[in-house]
Amino acid sequence: MTDRKNDGLTLLGNKGTHYIFDYDPKLLETFQNVHPDRDYFVKFNFPEFTSLCPITHQPDFATLHISYVPGERMVESKSLKLYLFSFRNHGDFHEDCINKIADDLIKLMDPKYLEVWGKFLPRGGISIDPYVNYGKKGTPWEAVAFERLSKHDLYPEHIDNR
Amino acid sequence: MTDRKNDGLTLLGNKGTHYIFDYDPKLLETFQNVHPDRDYFVKFNFPEFTSLCPITHQPDFATLHISYVPGERMVESKSLKLYLFSFRNHGDFHEDCINKIADDLIKLMDPKYLEVWGKFLPRGGISIDPYVNYGKKGTPWEAVAFERLSKHDLYPEHIDNR
Amino acid sequence: MTDRKNDGLTLLGNKGTHYIFDYDPKLLETFQNVHPDRDYFVKFNFPEFTSLCPITHQPDFATLHISYVPGERMVESKSLKLYLFSFRNHGDFHEDCINKIADDLIKLMDPKYLEVWGKFLPRGGISIDPYVNYGKKGTPWEAVAFERLSKHDLYPEHIDNR
Amino acid sequence: MTDRKNDGLTLLGNKGTHYIFDYDPKLLETFQNVHPDRDYFVKFNFPEFTSLCPITHQPDFATLHISYVPGERMVESKSLKLYLFSFRNHGDFHEDCINKIADDLIKLMDPKYLEVWGKFLPRGGISIDPYVNYGKKGTPWEAVAFERLSKHDLYPEHIDNR
Amino acid sequence: MTDRKNDGLTLLGNKGTHYIFDYDPKLLETFQNVHPDRDYFVKFNFPEFTSLCPITHQPDFATLHISYVPGERMVESKSLKLYLFSFRNHGDFHEDCINKIADDLIKLMDPKYLEVWGKFLPRGGISIDPYVNYGKKGTPWEAVAFERLSKHDLYPEHIDNR
Amino acid sequence: MTDRKNDGLTLLGNKGTHYIFDYDPKLLETFQNVHPDRDYFVKFNFPEFTSLCPITHQPDFATLHISYVPGERMVESKSLKLYLFSFRNHGDFHEDCINKIADDLIKLMDPKYLEVWGKFLPRGGISIDPYVNYGKKGTPWEAVAFERLSKHDLYPEHIDNR
Amino acid sequence: MTDRKNDGLTLLGNKGTHYIFDYDPKLLETFQNVHPDRDYFVKFNFPEFTSLCPITHQPDFATLHISYVPGERMVESKSLKLYLFSFRNHGDFHEDCINKIADDLIKLMDPKYLEVWGKFLPRGGISIDPYVNYGKKGTPWEAVAFERLSKHDLYPEHIDNR
Amino acid sequence: MTDRKNDGLTLLGNKGTHYIFDYDPKLLETFQNVHPDRDYFVKFNFPEFTSLCPITHQPDFATLHISYVPGERMVESKSLKLYLFSFRNHGDFHEDCINKIADDLIKLMDPKYLEVWGKFLPRGGISIDPYVNYGKKGTPWEAVAFERLSKHDLYPEHIDNR
Amino acid sequence: MTDRKNDGLTLLGNKGTHYIFDYDPKLLETFQNVHPDRDYFVKFNFPEFTSLCPITHQPDFATLHISYVPGERMVESKSLKLYLFSFRNHGDFHEDCINKIADDLIKLMDPKYLEVWGKFLPRGGISIDPYVNYGKKGTPWEAVAFERLSKHDLYPEHIDNR
Amino acid sequence: MTDRKNDGLTLLGNKGTHYIFDYDPKLLETFQNVHPDRDYFVKFNFPEFTSLCPITHQPDFATLHISYVPGERMVESKSLKLYLFSFRNHGDFHEDCINKIADDLIKLMDPKYLEVWGKFLPRGGISIDPYVNYGKKGTPWEAVAFERLSKHDLYPEHIDNR
Ligand SMILES: [Ca+2]
Ligand SMILES: [Ca+2]
Ligand SMILES: [Ca+2]
Ligand SMILES: [Ca+2]
Ligand SMILES: [Ca+2]
Ligand SMILES: [Ca+2]
Ligand SMILES: [Ca+2]
Ligand SMILES: [Ca+2]
Ligand SMILES: [Ca+2]
Ligand SMILES: [Ca+2]
Ligand SMILES: [Ca+2]
Ligand SMILES: [Ca+2]
Ligand SMILES: [Ca+2]
Ligand SMILES: [Ca+2]
Ligand SMILES: [Ca+2]
Ligand SMILES: [Ca+2]
Repeated sequence: MTDRKNDGLTLLGNKGTHYIFDYDPKLLETFQNVHPDRDYFVKFNFPEFTSLCPITHQPDFATLHISYVPGERMVESKSLKLYLFSFRNHGDFHEDCINKIADDLIKLMDPKYLEVWGKFLPRGGISIDPYVNYGKKGTPWEAVAFERLSKHDLYPEHIDNR
Repeated sequence: MTDRKNDGLTLLGNKGTHYIFDYDPKLLETFQNVHPDRDYFVKFNFPEFTSLCPITHQPDFATLHISYVPGERMVESKSLKLYLFSFRNHGDFHEDCINKIADDLIKLMDPKYLEVWGKFLPRGGISIDPYVNYGKKGTPWEAVAFERLSKHDLYPEHIDNR
Repeated sequence: MTDRKNDGLTLLGNKGTHYIFDYDPKLLETFQNVHPDRDYFVKFNFPEFTSLCPITHQPDFATLHISYVPGERMVESKSLKLYLFSFRNHGDFHEDCINKIADDLIKLMDPKYLEVWGKFLPRGGISIDPYVNYGKKGTPWEAVAFERLSKHDLYPEHIDNR
Repeated sequence: MTDRKNDGLTLLGNKGTHYIFDYDPKLLETFQNVHPDRDYFVKFNFPEFTSLCPITHQPDFATLHISYVPGERMVESKSLKLYLFSFRNHGDFHEDCINKIADDLIKLMDPKYLEVWGKFLPRGGISIDPYVNYGKKGTPWEAVAFERLSKHDLYPEHIDNR
Repeated sequence: MTDRKNDGLTLLGNKGTHYIFDYDPKLLETFQNVHPDRDYFVKFNFPEFTSLCPITHQPDFATLHISYVPGERMVESKSLKLYLFSFRNHGDFHEDCINKIADDLIKLMDPKYLEVWGKFLPRGGISIDPYVNYGKKGTPWEAVAFERLSKHDLYPEHIDNR
Repeated sequence: MTDRKNDGLTLLGNKGTHYIFDYDPKLLETFQNVHPDRDYFVKFNFPEFTSLCPITHQPDFATLHISYVPGERMVESKSLKLYLFSFRNHGDFHEDCINKIADDLIKLMDPKYLEVWGKFLPRGGISIDPYVNYGKKGTPWEAVAFERLSKHDLYPEHIDNR
Repeated sequence: MTDRKNDGLTLLGNKGTHYIFDYDPKLLETFQNVHPDRDYFVKFNFPEFTSLCPITHQPDFATLHISYVPGERMVESKSLKLYLFSFRNHGDFHEDCINKIADDLIKLMDPKYLEVWGKFLPRGGISIDPYVNYGKKGTPWEAVAFERLSKHDLYPEHIDNR
Repeated sequence: MTDRKNDGLTLLGNKGTHYIFDYDPKLLETFQNVHPDRDYFVKFNFPEFTSLCPITHQPDFATLHISYVPGERMVESKSLKLYLFSFRNHGDFHEDCINKIADDLIKLMDPKYLEVWGKFLPRGGISIDPYVNYGKKGTPWEAVAFERLSKHDLYPEHIDNR
Repeated sequence: MTDRKNDGLTLLGNKGTHYIFDYDPKLLETFQNVHPDRDYFVKFNFPEFTSLCPITHQPDFATLHISYVPGERMVESKSLKLYLFSFRNHGDFHEDCINKIADDLIKLMDPKYLEVWGKFLPRGGISIDPYVNYGKKGTPWEAVAFERLSKHDLYPEHIDNR
Repeated sequence: MTDRKNDGLTLLGNKGTHYIFDYDPKLLETFQNVHPDRDYFVKFNFPEFTSLCPITHQPDFATLHISYVPGERMVESKSLKLYLFSFRNHGDFHEDCINKIADDLIKLMDPKYLEVWGKFLPRGGISIDPYVNYGKKGTPWEAVAFERLSKHDLYPEHIDNR
């Protein structure tokens, strides 16, 4: 078994988790990737994302999919959840939330590859689904990132607002 | 947070929205893309599109999917909704509506890439789904546009008119 | 075969159908029920209902289900479609549209039983589904109407606004 | 095993089946119910029903569900299929087709209970689903028939014409 | 058209909606039921409910279904949305939220019948779905309420936490 | 824990199970119901039923649902599976298979209530779904059986032969 | 807000939860029902149930649905989860697990009504779904329990083992 | 708006449509493509295709998907419907129908690209789905056609004949 | 119409079909491909495949998808069905059945391309889905075969054994 | 038929299977690939994976998809199931379980290609889906492995935690 338990994680299995509802990237924690010689994918599904519209302050809701190929550090899932919950009372546009999450995770983990897809609930009958991705310079994943972007979402999911 | 609030938007969060039901591309408004160094996708889902048949004047109904890679300007979603609602009493063929929407958005935003897919309800047992896309000349997205077109819809969705 | 063809119908199979977009119950036409000795159900499904919000004038969209047990007259389906299309530019609340449709059809056909269920697309994240029914006095369907109302929709359909 | 093989059936397993496309109830054949002491249900699902509109001659399409509680005779399924195929070039209204099928099967089998539900594809955006049932006089199924009719279709299936 | 527009509603179509994130039943507004002689159902679907766990302060998420038979007053949907949004930073147990919403709406509208069903996302692999209903004393709906409660949810929806 | 292990079961967990493909009700085994004071339901789902048409010898396929309220003895599931597999090379009509399975299980277990529903794959575009039930004389389940039969399948499942 | 926090609960929000994998009903904890004058339903969905076959010791898997109408005490959901997890290394038949869970919860809470439905994954192509319910003597729920049992699962869910 | 109305179309919006049930490619009509400088896709979905088996004369049923990239002429949808209905009493094998439709449309429109996929209902438990495509010589679509053919249907849809 | 009727087929439309339940590839029959100049796909869906485990003799069940690009000869669908039914009492492993079917069809038809995908029902909670493909040497389909194999099933279908 | 029966398999069809609940790769057994000249895929679907969190010891649940292209040896499915069950009381992180399974199977079989995808149930509202793949050095599958990894999961499945 890996030694991940002693890798500086403070949140998983701890007691008295404190929930922060103002955007705070410092909530994110990492641990060591114990399979550094293998490129592989890890995906997080998070259907509980909610933030505020920066203009009207109406709550927005989205399901997020975050996929990445780890480098040396990996994001711990409970800290990721707390970080995503920290958008709860934060006002930002859909596109900016998704870009910000991508930027924070790239800075945190220095991954080989990362993508974030937000699927928001409709406002006024129209819904917005931003998608951002990234490949690390100097690795094959730089080209893969553009390749994946160029092939993004050829089959939009069926949407009827019910 | 971005300064999108002061980017000349007149519709989002305003009061007394006025709904126009005659085709009017001047309803469209844009704001500044604050992530100009990153190519990323934004998709709009709009299941409330309705127009009139130019010959019989019978109402037509469709779900639209509009995806694009922004350049310097981005379309504001409420203005997009009002623009799409402006087809309500406008008579045009399915294929022409989709081409027109693509043309208007290309002209408005000068995006790197854009695609519009309309999925119309059947008339007389047959339904029509036009798909138009565009890649900006002089960018990698010109070639991507043809690549995406050539791979378009290899898996038509299940349709049984019920 | 029944003699329904000569029952005064002016719309089915006619030429140059004229679409009216202002509420007009006089568009409705009926024909003779040729099975008067049998109580049976006829249901219409209509996913193309659209009207305007009487306050904001924003378009509203709904799927309607109309079921009835005919008396002597039955509503002709093309005339029903034209009648329902006549709400297109008419402003009325969801609940009032459904009540009005029920009232118009009861007055038109004098059915033994009738029900109208509207399932509207969400506005502001919330959707409204009014349901109205009616049983003719002096028939067993008067009691059935309350029985059906009292058992209405014990299993609300799954809604997630996507 | 039952002696159904020698019960006068001429169609099942025969050779050179002849398909009739003009309505012909004489195609129907029956066999003996070998469980006469038990009331039980038999349901036929038939998604291949097609007839013609008596006015426009446009083809109509439906899925039929036919359920019954047998008396002494039961309808043989291949003869039922041939009978239903015989509506192919026959012009009749949706409601009349369903009533006629019910009448023919009641006359043929003298069942304790029978119901026929037709779910037609839309024409002009609207679809029609007639439902007819019957309970034999002097049996408990006479009351059951009205009870089932009074509870018919409290949960209309989701319809969006796609 | 009904005179609902002048029925004291302050929120629908107004400008500068102010979002409150602390539980506040005074946000609720009503208007006159213009069909007082007819018992009918109105259902609200609200998949954007979120509150906080009163012990851990972790956000909780639910889809709410609220159905009622109006008496003299009806709840306005935008005010209902604002009221439901006011649970956003409020800590309460699932069962207590649903009971509280029912109590507030009964007090507000004095309806003939009302029910509230909350379907919460899982915590720790287990999810909780409280259901509360009410029938007005002295009306047939008092008995209907127990009848509906006694028949509640004989077919739990398929849940697999994905 | 119950003493079911020593209740004469010969098949569950045994070695070298022998599969019989000729109808043989003696394959069925029972064990003691250890909750004799409680009426409760047990349902078996079996999507692997296959038999032969007695006339054409073509294989038939069905999903079976068998539900019962136990009396003193209960059917062991592996023996039930072997019994159902014993129809594999047996020729019988759909309706007769379902009646025979019901008869065999009633004789085997003397249950308070039992029902068998077969949902067969189509032949020639038409499919047959027989349903048989039974309630023990002298118990409340005798009346329940007719009540359940009279309410059977008010909502036929959607069938499109694909 | 209710005073549930100080109602003797030891598990919710505590630290260092200890998972027990041997059947132990003493894990269950209760809190006070703060709506004692209202009969209402609470449902738990638990798709993570696993136990062992008492004969072969092969793991079994099920989704459980537990619904009840509370009396004075209610079961706390985290303690319920821990109790259900305690079946992990416990050997028992499907039917006996469901009966045991019902018995333990009735003894714990003294509810007005309770039901437990287990939907197990197939073994050998066949799956078993036991359903147990209970109504408190001397309350209207005693009769409701038999009424619900007599109407149990008239529409078995579609199962194809994939 | 385009001048498509005066492009020689005789069927759309006309009166007294005459339905032909013998295969007749002369029913097809075209209009001018008003976006000649853009390659784009138009897809027709047609779930009402029916023809006869040339050997047994049994009716066959299919859903057709027809997609094309227009050249100078485009097929008018009502004429396409009438053409497809003209197979109603025509006997031909599944594969030959699909090839014939492709050939007729290529000859009619001289498109840049075209594909036809037929998904037939099963006969004898087995169903057949022919797929034909074409790319115009001397255009990039010639190579695209083989590319699309080589990637055809890597994910066959789930089929269970129910 | 093609002259396929006189192409030596002995099974389609014949009388007294004889069903063989021991593996027999000689049941397969072919007819002439009348579109030899066009590469196109034909897919067979067969959800009624059943064979025996060669070790335990327990019946196995699968849905098969067979797709091919014809050369000069094509497999007749009824003979294919009879061939597939001939595995009914034949014992073989899942992987070997699929390889054998591919080998037999390649030998029979000498197709340009062929693939066979078997999706078996689970045994012991685990299911197996073998996939075999083939491209004719000296044609472009040799390279296509490896290309398709290398891209096989990037999106495994959702499986939950229910 | 292949000679797989005598290939040293000890588990399939044996008696008294012993279930191990501590991680043990020695449970895995192989047999000879009898189609060594053909590259083909075999996929295992396993929805019954459960392990423990190494920190909290809470049970985790996942559906696994394991696909491979065999070399000379193939993994026997019952031994694979027993191996996967051996994680039942083993504590490890999601990502490490999937890497370990891939490593064990690569070491066991020396396959040309292998991939393992785990889809875990959510903890705290967030779920994790690791994906690992491998291509044998010196074969075309080495490049295919990176190609498949680079195209992994462009369409994340819809997740809503219900
Ligand atoms: Ca939807
Ligand atoms: Ca939805
Ligand atoms: Ca369908
Ligand atoms: Ca959804
Ligand atoms: Ca829909
Ligand atoms: Ca639909
Ligand atoms: Ca559909
Ligand atoms: Ca599932
Ligand atoms: Ca879900
Ligand atoms: Ca789910
Ligand atoms: Ca199907
Ligand atoms: Ca189907
Ligand atoms: Ca499934
Ligand atoms: Ca299925
Ligand atoms: Ca399934
Ligand atoms: Ca959902």
